[in-house]
This record gives sequence, structure tokens and C-alpha cells, in this order.
Amino acid sequence: MPAKPVNPDLQKERNTATFDVREFSVLWAGGEERFKEKKALEKMFLEDPALQDDLPISYLSHKELYEHSLRKACIIGEKIRKLRADGEDGVDTYNALLGGSLGAAILKEGNPLALHYVMFVPTIMGQGTMDQQVEWLSKAWDCEIIGTYAQTELGHGTFLRGLETRADYDASTQEFVINTPSLSAYKWWPGGLGHTANHAVVVAQLYTKGEFRGLAPFIVQLRDSDSHRPMPGIDIGDIGTKLGMKGVNNGYLGLKNVRVPLNNMLMKNQQVLPDGTYVAPKNSVLTYGTMMFVRCALIRDTAQSLAKASTIATRYSAVRRQSPIDPNQPEPQIMDHTTQQLKLFPQIAKAIVFKTTGDGIWNMYNVISGEIEQGNLDRLPEMHALSCCLKAICSADAAAGVETCRLSCGGHGYMDCSNFPTIYGMTTAVCTYEGENTVMLLQTARYLVKVYGQALNGEKLVPTVSYISDAINQSKFVNFDGSLRSIVKAFQFVAANKTRIAYEQIELRRKQGHGTEVSANLCGTFLTAAADLHGRAFLAQTAYTELTALSREVSPELAEVLKVVLELYLVDACLNRIGDFLRFIDLTDQDVTQLEVRLENCLKRLRPNAVSLVDSFDLHDRVLDSALGAYDGNVYEHIFESTKKNPLNKEPVNGAFHKYLKPFMKAHL
Amino acid sequence: MPAKPVNPDLQKERNTATFDVREFSVLWAGGEERFKEKKALEKMFLEDPALQDDLPISYLSHKELYEHSLRKACIIGEKIRKLRADGEDGVDTYNALLGGSLGAAILKEGNPLALHYVMFVPTIMGQGTMDQQVEWLSKAWDCEIIGTYAQTELGHGTFLRGLETRADYDASTQEFVINTPSLSAYKWWPGGLGHTANHAVVVAQLYTKGEFRGLAPFIVQLRDSDSHRPMPGIDIGDIGTKLGMKGVNNGYLGLKNVRVPLNNMLMKNQQVLPDGTYVAPKNSVLTYGTMMFVRCALIRDTAQSLAKASTIATRYSAVRRQSPIDPNQPEPQIMDHTTQQLKLFPQIAKAIVFKTTGDGIWNMYNVISGEIEQGNLDRLPEMHALSCCLKAICSADAAAGVETCRLSCGGHGYMDCSNFPTIYGMTTAVCTYEGENTVMLLQTARYLVKVYGQALNGEKLVPTVSYISDAINQSKFVNFDGSLRSIVKAFQFVAANKTRIAYEQIELRRKQGHGTEVSANLCGTFLTAAADLHGRAFLAQTAYTELTALSREVSPELAEVLKVVLELYLVDACLNRIGDFLRFIDLTDQDVTQLEVRLENCLKRLRPNAVSLVDSFDLHDRVLDSALGAYDGNVYEHIFESTKKNPLNKEPVNGAFHKYLKPFMKAHL
Repeated sequence: MPAKPVNPDLQKERNTATFDVREFSVLWAGGEERFKEKKALEKMFLEDPALQDDLPISYLSHKELYEHSLRKACIIGEKIRKLRADGEDGVDTYNALLGGSLGAAILKEGNPLALHYVMFVPTIMGQGTMDQQVEWLSKAWDCEIIGTYAQTELGHGTFLRGLETRADYDASTQEFVINTPSLSAYKWWPGGLGHTANHAVVVAQLYTKGEFRGLAPFIVQLRDSDSHRPMPGIDIGDIGTKLGMKGVNNGYLGLKNVRVPLNNMLMKNQQVLPDGTYVAPKNSVLTYGTMMFVRCALIRDTAQSLAKASTIATRYSAVRRQSPIDPNQPEPQIMDHTTQQLKLFPQIAKAIVFKTTGDGIWNMYNVISGEIEQGNLDRLPEMHALSCCLKAICSADAAAGVETCRLSCGGHGYMDCSNFPTIYGMTTAVCTYEGENTVMLLQTARYLVKVYGQALNGEKLVPTVSYISDAINQSKFVNFDGSLRSIVKAFQFVAANKTRIAYEQIELRRKQGHGTEVSANLCGTFLTAAADLHGRAFLAQTAYTELTALSREVSPELAEVLKVVLELYLVDACLNRIGDFLRFIDLTDQDVTQLEVRLENCLKRLRPNAVSLVDSFDLHDRVLDSALGAYDGNVYEHIFESTKKNPLNKEPVNGAFHKYLKPFMKAHL
Repeated sequence: MPAKPVNPDLQKERNTATFDVREFSVLWAGGEERFKEKKALEKMFLEDPALQDDLPISYLSHKELYEHSLRKACIIGEKIRKLRADGEDGVDTYNALLGGSLGAAILKEGNPLALHYVMFVPTIMGQGTMDQQVEWLSKAWDCEIIGTYAQTELGHGTFLRGLETRADYDASTQEFVINTPSLSAYKWWPGGLGHTANHAVVVAQLYTKGEFRGLAPFIVQLRDSDSHRPMPGIDIGDIGTKLGMKGVNNGYLGLKNVRVPLNNMLMKNQQVLPDGTYVAPKNSVLTYGTMMFVRCALIRDTAQSLAKASTIATRYSAVRRQSPIDPNQPEPQIMDHTTQQLKLFPQIAKAIVFKTTGDGIWNMYNVISGEIEQGNLDRLPEMHALSCCLKAICSADAAAGVETCRLSCGGHGYMDCSNFPTIYGMTTAVCTYEGENTVMLLQTARYLVKVYGQALNGEKLVPTVSYISDAINQSKFVNFDGSLRSIVKAFQFVAANKTRIAYEQIELRRKQGHGTEVSANLCGTFLTAAADLHGRAFLAQTAYTELTALSREVSPELAEVLKVVLELYLVDACLNRIGDFLRFIDLTDQDVTQLEVRLENCLKRLRPNAVSLVDSFDLHDRVLDSALGAYDGNVYEHIFESTKKNPLNKEPVNGAFHKYLKPFMKAHL
């Protein structure tokens, strides 16, 4: 990677690493073969000059950025076509190109064609009949048509039953008449909807024979296939600038008496017959599958965000020197300040734990979705509850972690050339989309409270919540010896008690005469706290199990490093919830001080390997796209280069001087 | 304010308020007279069509935004000139126009002329001799010259002694020769430096007669006063795009053998005689004054950020309806969800408490700086310590609060038309500038540890830290009865114990053989935690004292509301640090549950007045600049209007379709 000589402070860090970076990189990539595939894809995409930017995109206007993004999206689309023709279009390649690190290296503010590949095509596959798939899929795969998925509305998000868009079946012409009856019914947010897609799956309230039937998906043509002009009755455009996702072309859509043929309703699960007879779906549970799938994938994305941010901040902290520790010594690498270590190293540890958990839950999802397809829905609620709270916790922690990393780089982190602002914009978005985090935690909590009632009745609980039964049978937590195992156990004990309190508080409100739902709302903050602890207990348990298992498989040198990562993660997680620990477990002031000293000690032990750990994430310089985080560590040179690209600096005197400033300065002379 | 009929849900909230909004507004503004001045200024500036934007600035490129900002800055400058001519240029007007809410309404991404007024002019006033003031000030006041203040460098920020820029006195020509000897010595960050200012105060390491003398400020001409071209030896430009402050024209500056006359060194505090003899300053303490002044002002700014963000989110939460609480009822205003209340209401309370504390500390600053001018430096360290930790805590809490408000608005908060992204960018910047927050906390902690040693020796402590002596004499906190007063006392007890632990840990490291400074670094996380609690204890105490006093002066109706605000603030603050409370004070699980139930209860009591409380902040629609937060609450209409201004939507088909997308779609046909 390095073109210039590596900054000596950074080189020194690499020279003194105690483990083999490549060993961990291969592990991180998912094995030797995946590692090689990754490198090959990087070569194919990142070395293509057509996919490189001369001008950093932060200098483009919104309109210019859209045009720029569409151009690159088409080049990527062309390459995907080629990969498909060669039979090399695995799911991993897709993920890497559209959502993953490679996609972010090419289109860091998002791809206006992404929803075509990740929502439009899969929806037709999942909800279209065989005939419908034959009709639409080849056109969609070949990008003869470009689609998106239009569900949320200006006035309606999470609560799907509140959607206003309606489709009325007209048996006389065998058509649906689709309308957005008010401004708040306008479809809002779909990626690529603004000016890119010419088709969409539109989700609407279905009415046949004058009766309401529930939600259904319809394929609607939005724009003329030749002129790209909006079709009659279609009011469409881009929703405007945003905190992030700036290249995605999120759009709005109003529909006024738009007629689509009967066969444009996707009918795999439910049907409308030509005369308007409605055939209800057999199983409404199936849609849970997709949502869980997406949330599991998001957990891995949050790990990637933390990996990026911690790589940038750690390398910068090895190069930047500031504020003597000893006034008689020169300014140290800022990474030698303990306060700086406390900002950086927990983020590195979280990146590793979230990745491990993301992989684990992905496997769990595959097992359970296999069971579901066999008609066994036993573990669906458990899996749903887990995916909800983990999505919320990992996205919130990752967004906060990215900001901690940015702030740890002082003023320079605030510059766009650090890439932190973009990474934050993309990461914090995950807190909102695919189920807003608070709603997610409430979903998990609802499950936990139900399970708590079952445990009280002596029912046997499924694996991921069985700790609740254990806690009920154990009024006091007695064996806190500070071992990692006992921290994990303590986390579970604490989580069970948070669920207990939520349960008891709801019961109390009910006894006071409130209904169940009103009681649950009054106890909202108890519920989200319980769900938070459930997720954190699961993360602690998974980190412990998986990293301990991994340590047995790798070289002793890497195992030693992973042990420090695990201890740092668990001690830090425990101290971050120390109020809950002290509330339910007898710990003294001295116990807490000991944990704090132990944290300091973990930081000290991680310090020599910090740079090499982030090197192991093996993030290409193009993926990082950061003057502060480049592999060669020539931080100041890269910042200065980026400044020289600034269009404002192309002229020594800006025109506004003559136009505004000079007349103002000379006004009274 | 309202032009359209107010949204009925919002009107309903206003109709049911239990207090007089105007009463609180006048109080918030600082009295009847200030309230009227505020309204007059708003009329003068916000109704001027030349200061209004047709196109939201988020659609401009970086270069366009600069030109746009400079145009408006000149119009504001012209108005300031007129106000001065009329004798109406009080400090408050300045603050409002350049930093405060009015300035933000006109130039929400900052003003490229701001540093001229708030740093260049004051530095000449503070550090120039009478003769130098005569020479430079009238030109600067009249804006014949435009200046900025160039201190931080690409490689050097907080640690001033590390600056590399040097000024060598050449007695033969009676000039200083100024150089930035390396890339990391380049001046970096000064506002307006890029293309706006033609002068700067440059801070450099002074050498005379070959000897190093310390830092000194020099007036350097950067650009030709007529052509605005950079002067010889000057390498200058804009540093590029950033997370926020996008209109400020932050610049870089390299100097190569730039010669300035002897008299361009500002010599009030230290002098260089023509032969190169150096006369050292009498008192280096004086520079602390300016830093404290700025930090005290920043605390009020953070209150303003929270006021803005909570106004937007609260009004939106009254209008937005989502997710039934009772499945048989329609979707409620989202403000009826307890979880939503927990996001919003603590931010409202913090806005009020930070404002009150900011005003209080401002008065304290004035008293102490009066004492300092009299030569009495007794309270300087105390004031310095307090201003450091409060700056850190209030900026960090405000930035987090803004994000909490944004996230509480779901996807719509992510749109720039909500104005949250800009408010966040401006607010989080405060965590870094004027002393990075961690460095600030360490400064405070250094003072606390010293004071702790004094207390152990039985010395009498100054008022704001006297609680430390109290705690030393009281091994156990016995009287926690849940009253607000006892929460405040408990905060102080907890803070004292955090300082104790930091002190003990440092002593322990010293006994282990580390030097004092190395020990302090090892204990960095103990130190920042102690400083954090010190600041929070002060906030709790101030909130309690000031709001209780205020309640006695206002109408009983308003007093009632302020009492709820105070209780909410204190209970929430306590629960946010419950780990520390449980660590040092005997509280049971039930005590904590009671506090949690009490928090829920505070939220419920504040609910009916939430909208009216934020109305009382009296933020003009132009100050809020938010589709979600407008006074009339026509949220969806405002969002849609903003979308219609999007330049991408001016053409039904974007040119990139023909250029890229169509060829891609038709490629294989």
C-alpha cells in the first residue's frame, strides 16, 4: 500500500507488534479464500481510473453529487453485469459492492441504484408468483428497468398499519387505482426514487369490493422508459439534502389515480381474483424473516464503521504529538495519554466484538430461518427480540464510538478530509432506519416481560433468555470474583433484574387501574432499560464464548492479544453500566476502584499492539479515504494535499472580494 | 409570528398551558428592556430582504457558500457601522449579531468576518500599546483593514509552547523576520484567514539577540490592500470543507521570510527595544482572563443550542402522530410516549439550567476579573478550574442533547431542512475549540487534586470547593432523604469522593516510583471523572439555588413550572450518575426504583407545559430555520416546500439520465 515512506512513529509501532498482522487479517476477512477474493475485488474496482475522484466530493453541490453518483453507479452496474455473465456474482460480492466497504470506497455517500439491487429485485423474488418473477426479474436483473421500494410516507414510518396510500380494485377494467390521498400520504425516503428509478414496488392499503384487506405491494411504473419523464398522475422528486447518504437520491412520490393492471400486485402470499375476490395470506409471519435478515446484516455494518473510525483515530494518535506528560520531555505521541487510550481502545475492542457477534447471529439466523421454512416457528420470537435490541445497541454504540474517535483527533477530525463526518452520517442513520432504535428496544422488552411471566410460572425458557430463570432462583449474586466469566454472569443477573423491575412496574400500574398497553407506555423507560441490558448481556456472553474459542485456534501470540481485547471489552462494558451492577450486586467502593485500575491496565497492555490491531482490519486507503488515517501516516502532507484540491484555492483572489468586500472596506474612504 | 393557521395539535398544547409564556420569555431575555431590544434587532435584521435566502444554503457548493456568506457578512458589517454611528453598538448587540441567535439566523454556518470583530480588534485593544491602538484600531473598526487571529498550527493546538512559527528580530533593519519553518508550522484554522482577511495577528516564538523569549503577537499584512493578492512570502488559502462552520472561511498560512516593522509586535505586555533588548511581561496571568471570558460565554451558547434543538423536537413531537399506545385508539402525538418524553424534556431542563449557570458564572467572572485588575489573584485558580470543566460538560451534554433531539424526530430529523445537522455541527465544535474538552477536564482536575491535599492539611478552601473539606470530615453520607437539597448535597459528596480517589491513585503511583507527572497521566481517567463530577455538582447546586430563588420572584403559576423543571433536572442528573451515587452512598435497589418512578412522574407533570416552555425561549422562526420546528407547526407543508426549492427538482429529468443511465439501461438491447 505505501507509496511514500511511512511516518517513522507509525513504523516504530508496526515494528514492535507482538503478533502477526496477516494472521488476524485473514481471520477478519473470513478465511484465506475470502481474503484473496477481497484483494481481487479491490484490485478490480479500486484501480479502475473511471472510479476515482479528482475532486473530493464534499466540494460538490447536491445536484453535482447526484450526477457524479449516478455516473459511478452505472459503471459499477456494468461491472456487476460482467461478473454475472462470468458467473461470479455471489452474495458477498454484492454486499461488498453495494453496502460494504468496497461500495463505500467508490460511493461513500451511497449509491442511487442500491435499492434496485437490494430491495426491488429481492421483493419480486420474495413476493411475486412464479409468473410474475418470469415477467419482471430478467428485465430487472439486466437493468432494463430500474426499481425501488416505496413504503414509508411523509407522515408514517414505523407503524405500517398507519400508511395512507391506497389501492382500490376496479373489477370493470381489472385494474388497481392507486392514490396518495393527502400530503402526509406521499411516499418519502426510498433511495433512488427521486430521479433514478423508473419503477417502484409501492406498498398500499388494498381495497377490493369496497372492503379493506390490509397492505399489499404493487409494481408501479413511475417514469417513461424512453424519455424518463414522470408518468401521468405521478408527482416525483428528490427530498433534498441530508446529514449523510447524500448521493442516494432519496425521493418522494405522490400518486393521483394511477392505474396498474391486476397482475402488477405481487401475489405470492395473497391474491386478488379478476372479479375482486380476495384470498388472504396463509402466514403473515414470513415478513419477519426479511426484517431479521436486514437487522443481522446491520450489526456487521456497525462493526465496520467502528473499524474504520478506530483505524483513522489510532493511526493519527500514533503520529500526532502533543502536550508533554513530563514537562522536561518532548511532546509524546498522543496515544501515550491514558485519556486518549480510553477513547480509542474500547472502540477497537467493540469493532471486534460486534463483528464476532454479527457473524454469530448471522449463523443463528440461518439456522432459525431454516427451521421457519420447515414450519417450526418456535425460535422466531427469541430471534426477533435479539435482532431488535442488538441492532439498536450496536448502532447507537457505533455512532457514539465514531464521534469519540473524531473528537479524539481534535480540530482535524472536524475536517471532511478526515472522513469522520461522512462515516458518522452513514453510521448514525442506522439508528433510525430498519426500525427506529427505541421502537426496537420496546419490541425486545415486550418479549422479555412476557418471558419473565413464563419464568415465574416455572416454564422452561429458550437458551438466550434462560438466565432469567436462573436469576429468579437466585435472590443474590454471590460469586463475583472479578473473573471474566463472573462479569458475564453478573451481566445476566443484572439484565434479569432489570426485566424483573419492568415487569413489576407494569403490574403495579395495572393494579392501579391502567390497561396493559397504557401501563406498558408509562413504564417505557423501564422497558428500554431492560432491553438494553438483555442485549449487552448477550454481547458479553458472545464476546466471552467466541473470543475464548478463537484464542484456542490461533497462534499463541494472537491469542494473547485477543485475551486483552476481551478483558478490555468486558471491564469497560461493566464500568459503563456500573450503576446497574452496584444496584443488584454487593460491590464495594474498592471493588469498583479495582475494576477501574484493571481498565487502565488493559489499556496499557493493548497500547503496543494498537496500530497493528487496526492494521489487521486491513482497510484499503480508499475505503478509509482519510488524510488522518492513511496507511503511510503522512498526516500533514495528506491534509495539505486535500486542501490544495479545494476549488476556492484555485484563484488567489476570490471574485466575491471585488463584488462585496472591497466596496464594503472602501465605503467611507 | 404565524402566517398560516397553526396546526390544531400544537394550538391545543398552547391553549392548555398553565403559565404565561410572555412572563418567562421576558425573564429568559434578561428583562423587559432586553426583550424589547431583541425584538427590535430581529425586526431590523430578519425583515431585511437582502438578508434572506431564496435557496437553502445546503444546496450550495463550498465555493458558492463562501461567496454567499461574504456577501451577507458585508451587509451585516454595514449595519454594524450604522449602529455604531448611532451610538447603539453595545456588547449584547455584537454578541447577538456575530455569535448569538440573530447571527445564526442570518449566517447559520458562520460569518467569515466574525474573527475580525471578536478576536482581531479585541487583541489589539488588549495587547497593543496606546500608540498601537491609535494606529490600528480606527482602521480596524472602520473595516478599512480586515483581520483575523492566527495562533494554532497544523501540527500544534492546545500546547502553545509547542508552536513552531518563529519571529527573529533583525536589529539592523528594525524588523522581525517571520517564518513557518515546516509544514506542521503552518497556521491552520483561523476564521476568515482563507480569502477574507488582509491582516492577521500572528502568534510566534520570539527570538531577539539570538535568544528565545517566549510567545509574542505580531500584526502581519497578508494581502495587498488594493488587489487583495497575497503579499510576498505568504502562502494562504481555505482549509476546505468541514462538519460545520461551513461559511467561516477557515484558512491556512505559511510565512517565508516575511518582514514586519518593529512596531508591529503588540507591546503592551512585553517589549522589544530597537536594539533588540527584550523587556519581559510583568504578569503572565493576564492572558487567563480572555480564555475564561470566552469559556463563560460558551456556556451560554450551549444553552442556546439546547433551546433550539428542544424547541424543534418538542413542536414536532406535538404534531407527529405515530404508533398507538392503546391498539384500539388512533395514533397519539408522539410526545405522549414516555420514552419520547425522556428524550425531550431533560434537554429543555438542561437548556434552562445551563442558561442560568451561564448567567451566574458570567457575573462571577465579572466580580473576579474586577479583583484581578485590582491585583487580587486569589480566586483566579478557582474560577479557571470552574470555567474549564463547565465548558467541557456543557458542550458535551449540549452536543449529545442535540443529537438526542434529532434522533427523536426519526428520519425527518436527518434531513437538512430540520436544521439539526447544522445545529449539531456548530454545537459539537465547542467540544474542541477554546480548549479541547479532555484537556479542560484535566486542568480542573489538577486544581482539585491540589485542593484536596490542602483540605487534608486542614487548610480552609474557597467557596466552590469547600464541599471537599465537608466530605473529608464526614466518612459516610447519612441523610439522603430524596429531597432536592439532599440530592445536591449528595452530588457534592460524590464529587469529593471522586477527587479523593484520583488523589489516592496518584499517590499510589508515586509510591510505586513514578514521577508526579507520569502518575497523573496514568491516572488520567480518574482525573477526568473527578472534574466531571465537580462540574456536575456545581451545576446541581446552581440549579437548585438559582431556580429556587427565581421561583420566589415570579408568578405562582410560573414558579410551579420552574419547580418541575428543577426536580426533573436534578433527578435525571442523579440517575445519569447513579453508579457514583451507589458507590459512595448507601442506597438500595428500592431507592433507585423510587428515583426512576419520580423521573417518570416529573415527565408526566411537565408534559402539559412542554410546548409552552419551548415557546418561552422565543426563538424566531428564522433562528430555528426548521421545517419541523416552525411556530405554526405545519410540519409536512414546510418539508414539502423546502423540497420544492431543491435545484434537482427544477427539471423533471436530470441530464445524467441521458448521459449515463439510459446508455447503461439500453446497453444490451
